[in-house]
Amino acid sequence: MHISELDTPSVVVDLDVLERNIARMAAYSAKTGIKLRPHIKTHKTPEIAKMQIASGAIGIAAAKPGEAAIMAAAGLDDIFIAYPIVAAQKAEHFLSLSDAARLSISVDSIEAAECLAKASDARGYDLPILVELDVGFGRCGVQNAPAALALAQQIDKLQGAHFGGLMYYPGHMMVPVERANAFLPHVNAAVESAYEAITGAGLEVRVVSGGSTPMAYRSEEFSHLTEIRPGMYPLNDRNLVVGGFATLEECALSVIATVVSNAVPHRVILDGGSKTFSSDRLLTGDHIGHGVVVQDPDAIFYGLSEEHGHLDITSSTRTYKLGERLRIVPNHVCATINMHDTIYGVRGDQVETVWNVAARGRVQ
Amino acid sequence: MHISELDTPSVVVDLDVLERNIARMAAYSAKTGIKLRPHIKTHKTPEIAKMQIASGAIGIAAAKPGEAAIMAAAGLDDIFIAYPIVAAQKAEHFLSLSDAARLSISVDSIEAAECLAKASDARGYDLPILVELDVGFGRCGVQNAPAALALAQQIDKLQGAHFGGLMYYPGHMMVPVERANAFLPHVNAAVESAYEAITGAGLEVRVVSGGSTPMAYRSEEFSHLTEIRPGMYPLNDRNLVVGGFATLEECALSVIATVVSNAVPHRVILDGGSKTFSSDRLLTGDHIGHGVVVQDPDAIFYGLSEEHGHLDITSSTRTYKLGERLRIVPNHVCATINMHDTIYGVRGDQVETVWNVAARGRVQ
Repeated sequence: MHISELDTPSVVVDLDVLERNIARMAAYSAKTGIKLRPHIKTHKTPEIAKMQIASGAIGIAAAKPGEAAIMAAAGLDDIFIAYPIVAAQKAEHFLSLSDAARLSISVDSIEAAECLAKASDARGYDLPILVELDVGFGRCGVQNAPAALALAQQIDKLQGAHFGGLMYYPGHMMVPVERANAFLPHVNAAVESAYEAITGAGLEVRVVSGGSTPMAYRSEEFSHLTEIRPGMYPLNDRNLVVGGFATLEECALSVIATVVSNAVPHRVILDGGSKTFSSDRLLTGDHIGHGVVVQDPDAIFYGLSEEHGHLDITSSTRTYKLGERLRIVPNHVCATINMHDTIYGVRGDQVETVWNVAARGRVQ
Repeated sequence: MHISELDTPSVVVDLDVLERNIARMAAYSAKTGIKLRPHIKTHKTPEIAKMQIASGAIGIAAAKPGEAAIMAAAGLDDIFIAYPIVAAQKAEHFLSLSDAARLSISVDSIEAAECLAKASDARGYDLPILVELDVGFGRCGVQNAPAALALAQQIDKLQGAHFGGLMYYPGHMMVPVERANAFLPHVNAAVESAYEAITGAGLEVRVVSGGSTPMAYRSEEFSHLTEIRPGMYPLNDRNLVVGGFATLEECALSVIATVVSNAVPHRVILDGGSKTFSSDRLLTGDHIGHGVVVQDPDAIFYGLSEEHGHLDITSSTRTYKLGERLRIVPNHVCATINMHDTIYGVRGDQVETVWNVAARGRVQ
């Protein structure tokens, strides 16, 4: 099928760019010896996860057991949940996947660890539980080295689980690269301090799991790192481009939308809005705009209704026609994919693959 | 099933509140004679649409043909698309629904009208096409009375279609009620001017379709209005409460979420984030916060990650426990429902109904 036959709005993935992005991160991982465990929250699509594994990733990360269940059913057999579980029902659901996949998880409380260990023990499983450390993002994670050590020691005494290492998420690094650079020494100080406290007490820290896409190609600069969990690198987005972490040419995903109204002067309305792009704002710049119009970077994608995209073309020299199609790279690729059940893999102008976003909406 | 057995996060709808909200709007419509054509973009759920029809609504409004197709297949037989269609493929899809439902649509360009008329004529259908008028929102819609008249006259000459009336969307009224009040005379001036131009030229304006939930209970104050298209009134949300258009007790929908981390001082993390609530901001207030915690209005729902809700409890006197469940009324009910495949109808503490959000994700 030619790309022009797709109804709009549609999400398309340039397969050449996707394959290059996957291969590049795999090569970086092989070169540095820092293992790659991609987070599938970005694409939620088993076929892309399998491409990542085929290129050398050691397994995947997921946020929720519901996502992990979809991936395990599709044959992904090494799954780390980068999310605390504190409810028995959810822990049992997660541990039921141990029939199909090697499991591991991170927590920041003994309550979560106990809940998971109980479900694990009931199945005769020995779950690696990592301690989540807050390295400056201020979301989850124990706050300092003594707390990390205390939790590691508590976990190691549990039946059905053992201390698996340290995990952190440097979410505050999704900012302009200069600011991310300034955070790096603080991240390293936090990790080094916890690492030393735990190893000093005689516990082995087998895994230090960090990462995320912005700084992924600089993982050697992160202390003690053994594996990274970048999610966005196969696809990239406007946040990464504006932040200085990727180029527009490295963005594999875009939305094809149609111009449906030009009745208001200096404005053009597209047939995709927040239910197509999500309303996630730009984190790496001035917070303005919802995407880049590939054909016209001078157009400002200033507003979103649910089904309308609002372009300001005051500064544009381009002529817009009703019915024409534009290609837009969204602010946040994870959130955009999450709005859709289907994404189209294209090569040039041909639709080569249709993927079901099988783990979309699995928030439980 | 008891509500405590639901995994979290889950979207629940209080059926008592839902039924009251539906009955109240139906009674208002019956009293004033202004017809009710609910917009299904809010709930995207045929079962709720049928409740609205059963209470006296004359039909439904939808944004996209994909939504309309789901509703037509479920037996909804009078569907107005409040959205311009400018592509032949989409027009043909829409008109194919004329086998199952009476159709009508609005446009703001002759190109859209011609595209639709052609698809209608090919089926021997006579499609009512309304002219969309911009009443101050600045999104779609012809800009003034002469443009409205010109388009109405052009539409009325088309084979397969006829001029059906005027349509407008006062989207700029989703602001604090005082500001909405200030917009009202301008809305009326725009409608009166277009209405007089068109009727003065000898064309009948059979329908003036306006509405939307914020000012729906004041529809008599809107000139020439024959029908309204409110979407949110069965459920309501924080935007409507903060704007002064509804009370928290009138909000039928909430999200049940679990406290999964309290490791960072003065913060609590919930197991729902932007992929549960959407990241739509508050439009009727200070733009701060992503929802109201029903159990603790002092908590500030200040941040969202994809799967984490960030509560600031600095000003709260409540004690938070890991694993406890909270109920949150989201900023924007339409966007929240759109994140989920399933919503649960509850009566008291019992889950009475499970609804599939059948038209979710139908952005085409």
